[in-house]
Amino acid sequence: MSLKQELVQIAKDAQVASRFLLSVSSATKNKILEDMALSLSSGRDKIIRANRKDISEAKKQGLSKAFIDRLTLDRKRIGEMCNSLSEVAKLNDPVGEVIKAWRVPNGLWIHKVRVPIGVIAVIYESRPNVTSDCIGLCFKSGNSVILRGGREALNSNLSIHETLRQVLKKYNIPEGAVNIVATKDRKAINALLKLDNYIDLVIPRGGESLINMVSRVSRIPVIKHYKGICHAYVDDWADLNMAQNICFNAKVQRPGTCNAMEAMLVHKHVAARFLPGMIKQFKKAQVEIRGCPITQKIVKGIKKATAKDYSTEYLDLILSVKVVASLDEAIDHINTYGSCHSDAIITENYENALAFLRRVDSACVYVNASTRFTDGYQFGMGAEIGISTDKLHARGPMSLEELTTYKYMIFGDGQVRK
Amino acid sequence: MSLKQELVQIAKDAQVASRFLLSVSSATKNKILEDMALSLSSGRDKIIRANRKDISEAKKQGLSKAFIDRLTLDRKRIGEMCNSLSEVAKLNDPVGEVIKAWRVPNGLWIHKVRVPIGVIAVIYESRPNVTSDCIGLCFKSGNSVILRGGREALNSNLSIHETLRQVLKKYNIPEGAVNIVATKDRKAINALLKLDNYIDLVIPRGGESLINMVSRVSRIPVIKHYKGICHAYVDDWADLNMAQNICFNAKVQRPGTCNAMEAMLVHKHVAARFLPGMIKQFKKAQVEIRGCPITQKIVKGIKKATAKDYSTEYLDLILSVKVVASLDEAIDHINTYGSCHSDAIITENYENALAFLRRVDSACVYVNASTRFTDGYQFGMGAEIGISTDKLHARGPMSLEELTTYKYMIFGDGQVRK
Repeated sequence: MSLKQELVQIAKDAQVASRFLLSVSSATKNKILEDMALSLSSGRDKIIRANRKDISEAKKQGLSKAFIDRLTLDRKRIGEMCNSLSEVAKLNDPVGEVIKAWRVPNGLWIHKVRVPIGVIAVIYESRPNVTSDCIGLCFKSGNSVILRGGREALNSNLSIHETLRQVLKKYNIPEGAVNIVATKDRKAINALLKLDNYIDLVIPRGGESLINMVSRVSRIPVIKHYKGICHAYVDDWADLNMAQNICFNAKVQRPGTCNAMEAMLVHKHVAARFLPGMIKQFKKAQVEIRGCPITQKIVKGIKKATAKDYSTEYLDLILSVKVVASLDEAIDHINTYGSCHSDAIITENYENALAFLRRVDSACVYVNASTRFTDGYQFGMGAEIGISTDKLHARGPMSLEELTTYKYMIFGDGQVRK
Repeated sequence: MSLKQELVQIAKDAQVASRFLLSVSSATKNKILEDMALSLSSGRDKIIRANRKDISEAKKQGLSKAFIDRLTLDRKRIGEMCNSLSEVAKLNDPVGEVIKAWRVPNGLWIHKVRVPIGVIAVIYESRPNVTSDCIGLCFKSGNSVILRGGREALNSNLSIHETLRQVLKKYNIPEGAVNIVATKDRKAINALLKLDNYIDLVIPRGGESLINMVSRVSRIPVIKHYKGICHAYVDDWADLNMAQNICFNAKVQRPGTCNAMEAMLVHKHVAARFLPGMIKQFKKAQVEIRGCPITQKIVKGIKKATAKDYSTEYLDLILSVKVVASLDEAIDHINTYGSCHSDAIITENYENALAFLRRVDSACVYVNASTRFTDGYQFGMGAEIGISTDKLHARGPMSLEELTTYKYMIFGDGQVRK
């Protein structure tokens, strides 16, 4: 079989399995997820052996320490993967929820009902823990999944997949519910993205170039987990102590995450009071500041921020700072340079808070809180498959509900159209 | 300015206007829509003159009578367009609806709020009434719209657009809220579909080849209003009188619509009792029947149905008929040959009804009613911009709510992440 034929077979099997999943009860799904957690735990030594092969190969290739850290599985990490599967078992099953129901004058009873999307492909980096997370979330929400992880994690992923597939087999669930693309051939991604007859959704997770490539090539709808260029805007009506707390947290608490702040905007009326203390605190925490001309005037010895800075996701201890003349300028800046992820205003002014919430075009807009809360767990939604920076079909943290769509079920008693 | 530059300018203006629309109240939007209806009515003679140019050009080109009928505007049709705008004014504004709100343990108050999608492009056939319908629906739901209608209707569309644009101007709404691509150049569509930085959604309406082209080329999310290969399945537990009524209605009441039945499936246990009378009624109504071998055995003189028949949207008085051995076979047939639009079961059996509702993978699934009800008005949703056969982000009839997405608004009082 050619690679293309092989992928078509996987996608067809996934579609057949997705239709089978429609008839599996929540109770059975939960039991299987708990059993998956147990199997992962009891199979951990085998998985760690497979992971060691990947690691030694990665070391040979001279991949970075951070890369190898993300690739590495140990007993603790596998324990976390098990916990994650158990937690997904405990989450509410969104499938079958009646979103709305109403009767129309002729007596038809229309139900808008939550249903699985169908077949979901996830393309992700070399982080083998993502493999079991995606399997858990897609299975619970009634979707078949096709996984294509980073090439460097292939042995680890195959081992995790095989362990979980055995559990499906035990419960007579078609194995097509959980698939892995078992090749390092990069052509597989292109071929997969053409299978819009079988695959309903693609979620790419990873670097900017991967996501751009997937959006360009795919004939399947894509939900992008894109970069996070998050802002905090310190309004002229801000409580400046609170502002300092929130901005520091948003930048420093975990700078490598997509919901960390990359640019801080400060109203000109408070800049002179706010910036010196704030920047001092940042500098103490090793944060490099790049400022606009006014910032450079207020605090000496700061590098200049360029337009490129304003549109860069540093993912690091670097921050651009801009003094703005008004709330309008702040909102325009965010809508121009931001990535529609998470943005915050710090203010005690009611009108400004509402205007910011309404007019900033991002998935998550905060008043008086750190952008770092954009996260499935922090929102109380449980594990997440990603954070969408797209507008359709889901925005922000994507958990079980975001892995569903709806259909109309209409109950009649003989109605015909006049 | 080149065509491409011109389109970029339109798209940029549309994006700016869409941000302005976020601050326009429902009351103002409704007033503007009522005023649009009035202006359309008082400007009808001018519009009809522009329409006549299109018609005479179409006649010169020898376009079909049906085509020219769809293209034609008269006082009655313009009256309907006005009514449609007034009705949209009366519909509930979905923008700002709080879909869900909850508090998390640290006190953050999370609101999931309905917001406009942003900028919507609609590509459609030469039916000028669609121009005002789309403007009305997009404007009410807070979206900017970019219209690209069929080339043959350009004069009519420009005249309608100009009339409605003047109303926006009067109310100081940026005119970029309502745009029309004023060229017959086909390259405009390709160029438009690349502007994913400005346009959030494309809705193509029209023939299969147009929709396929748009899906292939677009870098913007697409919601397809694709073909309707709708089925009715007469179960062995059906009330056969009701079945005959519903099937006749689904096929004959208006065969040219996407929600008309194209294939009828009949359980083998009732085929011999049901088919002779049913087919007789169809033949009386000039319906051409194409049947499977068993159908051909039960009723003589019927043409054979091929696999191609089962996957054809006739939009005409033609029906394929297939006898199936079981409910499972019916469901498999629909999921294989259907177009995920509308499908019905006729049955008195509770289990079979629920299995059909759950397992048929279509936007609208009916028990004991005609598929002809799939329609925004019939569902009580008001005017529709189309009927989605996609799964994301909207399914089935798309009205105002389906032209929105959501964002999270989060109210804090100083929370930082620990």
